[in-house]
Amino acid sequence: MDARAWLERCHKYTYIDGESGFQVNFAGMAFEDADIETMAERFPAVHEEMRKIEMGEIKNPDEHRKVTHFTDRSVYTGTSVYSEVEAFAAGIRSGEIKGSTGKPFESAIINGIGGSALGPQLLQMAVNGPYWNEFSREKRGGNLKIYFLDNTDTAGLADALSVCDLETTLVVSVSKSGGTQETQNNLVVCQAQYAAKGLDFAKHAAAVTMRESKLDSMARSAKWLRVFEMAESIGGRTSETSIVGHLPAALAGIDFEALLRGACHMDNLTRNQYLTHNPAYMLASMWYLAGKGKGDRNMVIVPYSDRLILLSRYLQQLVMESLGKEKDLDGKTVHQGLNVFGNKGGTDAHAFIQQLNDGRDDFFVTFIEILEDVMNAPITGQVAMGDYLHGFMTGLSNALRSKKRQVIEMKLNSVSPFNLGMLIALYERAVAAYAELIHINAFHQPGVQAYKLASKGIIQMLTELEEKLPAIAPFTGTAGEITAKLGMTEEYEVEGILAKLAANGPRRSLPVNLRRSWNKDKGWEYTIAPK
Amino acid sequence: MDARAWLERCHKYTYIDGESGFQVNFAGMAFEDADIETMAERFPAVHEEMRKIEMGEIKNPDEHRKVTHFTDRSVYTGTSVYSEVEAFAAGIRSGEIKGSTGKPFESAIINGIGGSALGPQLLQMAVNGPYWNEFSREKRGGNLKIYFLDNTDTAGLADALSVCDLETTLVVSVSKSGGTQETQNNLVVCQAQYAAKGLDFAKHAAAVTMRESKLDSMARSAKWLRVFEMAESIGGRTSETSIVGHLPAALAGIDFEALLRGACHMDNLTRNQYLTHNPAYMLASMWYLAGKGKGDRNMVIVPYSDRLILLSRYLQQLVMESLGKEKDLDGKTVHQGLNVFGNKGGTDAHAFIQQLNDGRDDFFVTFIEILEDVMNAPITGQVAMGDYLHGFMTGLSNALRSKKRQVIEMKLNSVSPFNLGMLIALYERAVAAYAELIHINAFHQPGVQAYKLASKGIIQMLTELEEKLPAIAPFTGTAGEITAKLGMTEEYEVEGILAKLAANGPRRSLPVNLRRSWNKDKGWEYTIAPK
Repeated sequence: MDARAWLERCHKYTYIDGESGFQVNFAGMAFEDADIETMAERFPAVHEEMRKIEMGEIKNPDEHRKVTHFTDRSVYTGTSVYSEVEAFAAGIRSGEIKGSTGKPFESAIINGIGGSALGPQLLQMAVNGPYWNEFSREKRGGNLKIYFLDNTDTAGLADALSVCDLETTLVVSVSKSGGTQETQNNLVVCQAQYAAKGLDFAKHAAAVTMRESKLDSMARSAKWLRVFEMAESIGGRTSETSIVGHLPAALAGIDFEALLRGACHMDNLTRNQYLTHNPAYMLASMWYLAGKGKGDRNMVIVPYSDRLILLSRYLQQLVMESLGKEKDLDGKTVHQGLNVFGNKGGTDAHAFIQQLNDGRDDFFVTFIEILEDVMNAPITGQVAMGDYLHGFMTGLSNALRSKKRQVIEMKLNSVSPFNLGMLIALYERAVAAYAELIHINAFHQPGVQAYKLASKGIIQMLTELEEKLPAIAPFTGTAGEITAKLGMTEEYEVEGILAKLAANGPRRSLPVNLRRSWNKDKGWEYTIAPK
Repeated sequence: MDARAWLERCHKYTYIDGESGFQVNFAGMAFEDADIETMAERFPAVHEEMRKIEMGEIKNPDEHRKVTHFTDRSVYTGTSVYSEVEAFAAGIRSGEIKGSTGKPFESAIINGIGGSALGPQLLQMAVNGPYWNEFSREKRGGNLKIYFLDNTDTAGLADALSVCDLETTLVVSVSKSGGTQETQNNLVVCQAQYAAKGLDFAKHAAAVTMRESKLDSMARSAKWLRVFEMAESIGGRTSETSIVGHLPAALAGIDFEALLRGACHMDNLTRNQYLTHNPAYMLASMWYLAGKGKGDRNMVIVPYSDRLILLSRYLQQLVMESLGKEKDLDGKTVHQGLNVFGNKGGTDAHAFIQQLNDGRDDFFVTFIEILEDVMNAPITGQVAMGDYLHGFMTGLSNALRSKKRQVIEMKLNSVSPFNLGMLIALYERAVAAYAELIHINAFHQPGVQAYKLASKGIIQMLTELEEKLPAIAPFTGTAGEITAKLGMTEEYEVEGILAKLAANGPRRSLPVNLRRSWNKDKGWEYTIAPK
């Protein structure tokens, strides 16, 4: 494309919001004007579905749920939940609400996974930076240090416990259903740790959950500091602008109201019914055209910003969990999806950019530029440090386009709560619109249920194995021999469980002594001895 | 597949190293026995090329370089560089080597990008955990806090400066060529920060670079604390077992010798010439078969371990920069590549697992299980916290395989330096072998050069613009009008630069006053006023 044609295309396909400084240039994507016209014909129907979402119709038919994140946030600051969170956080920060020994809180452990972790982590990193927990109380302005437990890995829990003084730590457990296994596990162990130190856990605990969930009942009966209600209509991966994002942000002193304003501002921009005047609809159209409506290209997200390093991870959940579906709305098998990955530029130029430039043409990249540098850092008289970030981004964009690779360029003035709110709302709307284009339910996750059931089966087998092992002790044999001896059949699963139990034998209470050793003729052998 | 056939397949295609506990089960991948026989026929030639690498032949023809990472590490502990690093780190830790004001060092800033950052970051997170820098000196055993500068983003630099007391901080700049722009930028700004505080930067600075590089000359003439030589044959993305990984590890008290032992142990295992007896060759074969030799499936890396969260990022560089190539060794255009992404399990079950289960069948996943829990964390009498991690992994593996998704399962006893060394060496060998299968040079990165040139062009234009702007001030107009007024043509690039400069005008010295404002009829307008 010659320079003049490229410029005209940029003018035609760049969306700019002069008020916020947000802009996105779609010109680097491989489409013709006619493609946009064809897409535009589909958007009255898409727009009507978006309207239904906001009118409160059931848009998640499988779970018979409304989808309320676009509308909830426009009124959230006026709700009692909002005021309660603000008051609670203020009480914690001021020291008015104290821990069990009367000391003010210094740290919060946010115990939640998936949607309850990724948004708060994104916001914390983006607004407070990577070293927030190393700041003094004064430098934090009296706000809390924030730690996340987002798995059922003892390593992650032990790491948090190694730096949190429980006496001054608040544990916030977040689970809509109240039964999320990982969250429950961390809670159980935290409770035990507080008990072991003679501290009253209830005076260090808060919950965010649905009314009458298991967690809700437990927290209320144990008289925790506070139990916040999470509405049933909130979806995990779209919960960042709800109480799920609010409470951690408020404890860390992040201006959540600005995040909400940014999200609502973008919601207003993306309520425009005309494709080329609606950045979310354009974004969804780009995904559709690039991947032929089947996700044939990976979405590579590269913010040129250290503080936005977690954005790709956040979007991975939002996009892949929403769009990765086996069936469409008519029950037809479609195996849809859209892969998302990325880290940050310019760093990635030293990682996977080689492949993007030269390798498989199986992606489209979204660059996000942050215009304002946070410090004055001259390198030469005329060139500042951040100019290189701009230069690397534009240079890469030019290099990629010269090889006919596809590029979307987004710009924001700064990494602020307002701008993060805009980004989140933009991608939420684009995901919802794209789901309409491919005719799927973006708001359920049936595949996760299947895997949860399978996992439960493994845990049941582990329990069964522990019960049965004493009867055959002493015994030495391979997993196959033990499986047979126990009258079981699932050798593959039994071997996995034996390996796990044997590795942790010394560390835990098992009804037998169990160890694994290598037999060069037979492979792994397990020795089961009575206790 | 029935249970019996599945078991037999597991026995046949699981590689186990009884000595270290490393094992990998390939049975969950979609191949027939005949595929392995066909692949096996190709491995004598692959093996011969691996032998050439280790014999020191030129295996990176474009750059006329040897590829020495497999052999260097077997002798590294006996070299003078190794002893010098150990002695230097010991001197720093003990306080024998002091900063400019006579205080012992508390922190090290590792200033390096790509290969100079990703390996050290992986190792630091895996061995010392996410909260190392929050530990007291005592808890760190006198070892240093570690910060990384791996970009040219003022935000990342400002964040590090906000927590590092320069008086007790060592700045280690790592750049083989000595001319890496990002590293140089961070160095320039750090020097200015030390000067502004009246501190002698030379007494806080060390370098790792090639002899006679720009960085080498500069550091030597300024009499920095120490300049370490980096051999020309070390490749960035395969440098973790060299001085590049060693120095940061030694400063942080990580047992680097154990990492080397682990890598060498895996090197020994993967020198086996027979495909099914060589886990790296099997891994490369799986990649080849799954992606039909063209990378048609994404490689999803899911370690079930919080401490291994950075592994996928590390492998992204190792795999994608090595294998993402336009031309093969004969100069034929092939556009090869292999996409890598992932985070950690079980967390990812709440993110992208929905898509893996139900969505596009365009990937294969590699699970990495860590058998040993780091703390005793009972959830019920019989089930411990880490059992759930095992249950989630096995449950997901079963669920995925039941849907004919492809799975590799790896197991390690623990996240130790030794085991990390094994993992790194395994993937390095697999990448080198896969490159032979697809007949490409895995050790150069021509695409990065193209992009660097394009970026340099943007910086030159920025300089030119700063020089020309005063001549037209005062002036208000769009980027197009300014471009024309200046007699330039590259409006797209000019607009990008103007937006960047205007956003930072108040923060930096420009030869004019420049601001951007929104004109609803004309779009962005720039006002240029004389100073």
